[in-house]
Amino acid sequence: MSSSNSACGACKYRRQKCTKECVFAPYFPPDQLHKFAKVHEVFGASYVAKLLSELCANLREDAVNSLAYEADMRLRDPVYGCVGQISILQHRLKLVQNDLYK
Amino acid sequence: MSSSNSACGACKYRRQKCTKECVFAPYFPPDQLHKFAKVHEVFGASYVAKLLSELCANLREDAVNSLAYEADMRLRDPVYGCVGQISILQHRLKLVQNDLYK
Repeated sequence: MSSSNSACGACKYRRQKCTKECVFAPYFPPDQLHKFAKVHEVFGASYVAKLLSELCANLREDAVNSLAYEADMRLRDPVYGCVGQISILQHRLKLVQNDLYK
Repeated sequence: MSSSNSACGACKYRRQKCTKECVFAPYFPPDQLHKFAKVHEVFGASYVAKLLSELCANLREDAVNSLAYEADMRLRDPVYGCVGQISILQHRLKLVQNDLYK
């Protein structure tokens, strides 16, 4: 929740007025514009707003953190994103399991 | 590449004319509307078009498949999406490593 003088990171980034009903404000502080910028670039503000509004308030922070992680991974690795990380972990798990049960 | 009579899955879904320059056509066949629908819901068509246009042609299929997987995971698990899968794999890897090196 922010007044127009202390817009949240999402509203500051989009140069919009931040109201007390702003769905982004609790999760995007004004000093972390990059967090919103990445999520915005990959998922878009309207998708994130829709997703948050459909979730219970106690799940929203986890959702934002997972979206931020996914967005960051996609920007680092535009081809595989998070899925690249999943493949690496699956491969490592297979190798360790082979060592364990050989 | 599609004529307007055989629009790709992305153009068919968006009810747009599919041209021979369509960036979606090679990766979204007309009989797989659901594949595009999921990617569209989570990432949006313009982000996907931009991402594909910035990649070498030989990497685009992998990119589409990873986007489709991520979108599917996010729709199944709106809070954690792919990141939930990463957490599970990290946890399993830790357990197996503990067994291996105990």
